[in-house]
Amino acid sequence: MTELDVAGLQRRLAAFAAARGWEPYHTPKNLAVALSVEASELVEIFQWLTPEESARVMEDPGSAHRVTDEVADVLAYLLQFSEVLGIDVLAALAAKIDRNELRFPVPENKDRHSSE
Amino acid sequence: MTELDVAGLQRRLAAFAAARGWEPYHTPKNLAVALSVEASELVEIFQWLTPEESARVMEDPGSAHRVTDEVADVLAYLLQFSEVLGIDVLAALAAKIDRNELRFPVPENKDRHSSE
Amino acid sequence: MTELDVAGLQRRLAAFAAARGWEPYHTPKNLAVALSVEASELVEIFQWLTPEESARVMEDPGSAHRVTDEVADVLAYLLQFSEVLGIDVLAALAAKIDRNELRFPVPENKDRHSSE
Amino acid sequence: MTELDVAGLQRRLAAFAAARGWEPYHTPKNLAVALSVEASELVEIFQWLTPEESARVMEDPGSAHRVTDEVADVLAYLLQFSEVLGIDVLAALAAKIDRNELRFPVPENKDRHSSE
Repeated sequence: MTELDVAGLQRRLAAFAAARGWEPYHTPKNLAVALSVEASELVEIFQWLTPEESARVMEDPGSAHRVTDEVADVLAYLLQFSEVLGIDVLAALAAKIDRNELRFPVPENKDRHSSE
Repeated sequence: MTELDVAGLQRRLAAFAAARGWEPYHTPKNLAVALSVEASELVEIFQWLTPEESARVMEDPGSAHRVTDEVADVLAYLLQFSEVLGIDVLAALAAKIDRNELRFPVPENKDRHSSE
Repeated sequence: MTELDVAGLQRRLAAFAAARGWEPYHTPKNLAVALSVEASELVEIFQWLTPEESARVMEDPGSAHRVTDEVADVLAYLLQFSEVLGIDVLAALAAKIDRNELRFPVPENKDRHSSE
Repeated sequence: MTELDVAGLQRRLAAFAAARGWEPYHTPKNLAVALSVEASELVEIFQWLTPEESARVMEDPGSAHRVTDEVADVLAYLLQFSEVLGIDVLAALAAKIDRNELRFPVPENKDRHSSE
């Protein structure tokens, strides 16, 4: 049985790293860097695509697999980073959405978002 | 009431973007790029820290807030990216851990991990 | 008088860092990370732009200044990284172009480049 | 004869892209993204290394080659990006160092640099 919730995945990732003796490498700095490296590997898939081509990336099974795999890698490092620092990722995001709802009120003129 | 699960947060993010007319900007390519930009903003906090300093980053309330905020931003774009492409992020990660358990068997000699 | 060649700029950057006691922070790892952080700050300027809008980014003086500034930051870290490791950046690029000319012969069909 | 100066390398890169029909892909946005992807590939080499290990990365011929190759890729995209937008990279960096000399006066207390 696979635990399909964030806390369960974090436990699996922590056990995985511990069993392989990887904990000394998993400093917050290294995990943040690894997260950004994986995010760039995801970007690499899209780098020469037009916006329209990028919207069809899941139609090809090979690139669909690659995209899904990189998404998993990004989430893996995000969850390990958060676990190591004791951050509740879901609560962090909920609080951020709350703040953004105040910061970006629904506009009359909504044709451009500046820096989020 | 805040929905503190991945699917609930994805719904809030989708509604947030729709209400502001941001959907045209949210191509998979742009969302992947935004994810990597946010991951780099997280890295920036750590860029001049030693490994030891990086482990104490949550002790200072200012940097703790900044780290938590960037984690939220990374998760926000990861969830929006996955939503736009129909990827189940938790299932993707569970499947990746399954594969990694075959690919990286628990070693006798566990002093270094190569590329994960 | 400003030394407008790569070696002269590397000397200025090295003197700048030495005068401020920054050398201990300038490990190859930290400089590579700082380079990637600056590259992402450059990307951030473009993240919500269409390809067409991105081609007009220098028309607005504010964004022209910002782009030029980020280009300078990327080059600064690239030169410092290379200096610390004894890499001749111009020779490295010339050698890479030589290799790429063999690796990517001028094609009959030239409508797509895959991974460079 | 190889032209070992920035302008000469930019001419070679422009001719290389033109001969392969790659110009339509070389929007400023795509080139900035490609630059950041290459910067992350450079970072990847260092991601699990300690600061001390990172300082010895050129001792191993394999990793020395890999580092040099990624440096070349970063410079290639930086020069192509700048060429497409008409930015003089060396002048941009010289001007930035001038500004930084005012912004970061040589300190009495020089034990930490904050954000550069």
